[in-house]
Amino acid sequence: MAIPDDFDAWFRLLQTPGLGREGARRVLAAFGSPDAALGATAQALTELGGPALTATMARREPECEARLAAARAWLAGGDERHVLTLGDAFYPPLLLQTADPPLLLYVQGRASLLAAESVAIVGSRDATPQGLANAREFARELAQAGLSVVSGLAAGIDGAAHEGALAAGGTTLAVVGTGPDRVYPARHRALARRIADTGAIVSEYDPGTPVLPEHFPQRNRIIAALSRGTLVVEAAPRSGSLITARLAVEAGREVFAVPGSIHSAQSKGCHALIRQGALLVESAADILEALRGTRPAAAPAETGDEAEDPLLAALGHDPATLDALLARTGWPSAELSAKLLELELDGRVARLPGGLFQRRIAG
Amino acid sequence: MAIPDDFDAWFRLLQTPGLGREGARRVLAAFGSPDAALGATAQALTELGGPALTATMARREPECEARLAAARAWLAGGDERHVLTLGDAFYPPLLLQTADPPLLLYVQGRASLLAAESVAIVGSRDATPQGLANAREFARELAQAGLSVVSGLAAGIDGAAHEGALAAGGTTLAVVGTGPDRVYPARHRALARRIADTGAIVSEYDPGTPVLPEHFPQRNRIIAALSRGTLVVEAAPRSGSLITARLAVEAGREVFAVPGSIHSAQSKGCHALIRQGALLVESAADILEALRGTRPAAAPAETGDEAEDPLLAALGHDPATLDALLARTGWPSAELSAKLLELELDGRVARLPGGLFQRRIAG
Repeated sequence: MAIPDDFDAWFRLLQTPGLGREGARRVLAAFGSPDAALGATAQALTELGGPALTATMARREPECEARLAAARAWLAGGDERHVLTLGDAFYPPLLLQTADPPLLLYVQGRASLLAAESVAIVGSRDATPQGLANAREFARELAQAGLSVVSGLAAGIDGAAHEGALAAGGTTLAVVGTGPDRVYPARHRALARRIADTGAIVSEYDPGTPVLPEHFPQRNRIIAALSRGTLVVEAAPRSGSLITARLAVEAGREVFAVPGSIHSAQSKGCHALIRQGALLVESAADILEALRGTRPAAAPAETGDEAEDPLLAALGHDPATLDALLARTGWPSAELSAKLLELELDGRVARLPGGLFQRRIAG
Repeated sequence: MAIPDDFDAWFRLLQTPGLGREGARRVLAAFGSPDAALGATAQALTELGGPALTATMARREPECEARLAAARAWLAGGDERHVLTLGDAFYPPLLLQTADPPLLLYVQGRASLLAAESVAIVGSRDATPQGLANAREFARELAQAGLSVVSGLAAGIDGAAHEGALAAGGTTLAVVGTGPDRVYPARHRALARRIADTGAIVSEYDPGTPVLPEHFPQRNRIIAALSRGTLVVEAAPRSGSLITARLAVEAGREVFAVPGSIHSAQSKGCHALIRQGALLVESAADILEALRGTRPAAAPAETGDEAEDPLLAALGHDPATLDALLARTGWPSAELSAKLLELELDGRVARLPGGLFQRRIAG
């Protein structure tokens, strides 16, 4: 993708010290473009935001031009390197719907995937082995169902989620808190390369930006905002994954959480989310049902085929007593009662006054 | 407790074939007492319920008098044996608030416990070892907090719940689906004796009533109705515990469920309940908080003492930059960021525009 004509102006606007994304969006809204904002007169700026805004807009980050040159060099380094501006026609629509969309997004890989239907899978860096296996399996099934899997390339759950999607031959996006040219943790370098080959590495930080802990909660907001829903597989009570979940809720997206043992610290964050309204999920089918309104056809049916149930056959469509059913089926009383209870709980048999049982037809 | 004067009339009314509890409550409401209902004229009965009711009320269960004599003999067999009628002043108030209160309740043990504040603990007969341990621990802590533990004397979770309450020196009630003189399963005979010694065995079935599978869902309604809330510790997707939970909801009571591994069949019923609105609980403290509005003082505080937090002390009450906090604390950057994140999630620190952090005071 060619570098957009107005990239330099976007870059310089964003690097204005003390302006921030919110300030940048404000001057963009007022002046129409980053070029116009950077060229606005002191009078116009003072009218918009008082002398403070005029002073801020006059500031220049000393290393801005060097960083811009580095960014242009990185972008020129390969066909699979892209930058999207907030004004780009291909800017991801779901991101636009959130309160704090990034002004620039650097992408290494398939930029079109940013607009694909996706689910975020996040969780603890110190995950349990079962948590890692669960993350892989959820990612594998979601990818097989055609969803992209978004995560943060971190150790633990994040890495397992990317691996699961790749193992299914699906696509996965890694939203990183460093520049798009850096990999953290370093042991995920091979994983990052595989993600970039078939999916995408995404960052709002310009190339060369090192690991800065304060960037991670910011990165989490992009993970939440890019996705139709966020699944938290394992999380300690106070952890970054819960920030991602909170940001997903604020963006009006679904939050899903995997329950676990009440004795596992890594499940307590998930349990807290469920108590706050997150959907408890046991399988990818639960997520697909919530997002698409239907369970995937491949999921195992929870109830047997009604036509084949021998007790429903014995019951027919008229009320019958327990004695009659004992005689018809020839089953031991306990087994018959257990089976009747099961059908009653299924809503397929009703218990009538007078000890009678009757078949119920759904719908 | 002496046998109530009108016990024979209650017994005979309830044994009228085809009348049922609903029919019995109807004639009681119309005629004022079981004696008056049994002595009502054909004309009065026909006016109330047509010829069908008159025919029903004329029926007599052939073994009724023999069963009545057996019930009186059982009641006369010990000071700790009682029967409560629906009209009794000591009839449990919570039971009266439900749609289908038992007309007679046989009690072996402390009848006054029927009115004590209680929580039901129910679950699978085929519980996992961890499920049994959880049931014991929840029961122990609830009993220590002064609540009675109600369960069904069944194998598995029920037995563990009774054991846990007894181990804490607390009180526990077993609502059984047999007559009060029978124990099912037989291996719970010693447990039943210990329950009767300090708590109570409760049944709506007259002495001598054997194990009838169709009685168990009926028994479950009494467990749910006697209790302020019902805790399901482990349950398969279609099981009697889910009936108890549904009946608790219908009676306007709380339902609590313990989450577990998504790979355990014995947790799937609990997960289904949570999805339907049951409160996910990790400890007895969660239940006590839901029922009493406060967490027990003994529960470990979830947040540290604010006065003692060194980072909050370093932050003071004015906004500060990360650099300033690095200088004040002398901590490594990663550690400082992690701790700030923790305080932010706790709601005790706010992240302001411009990279500033500020202390937040609750309330």
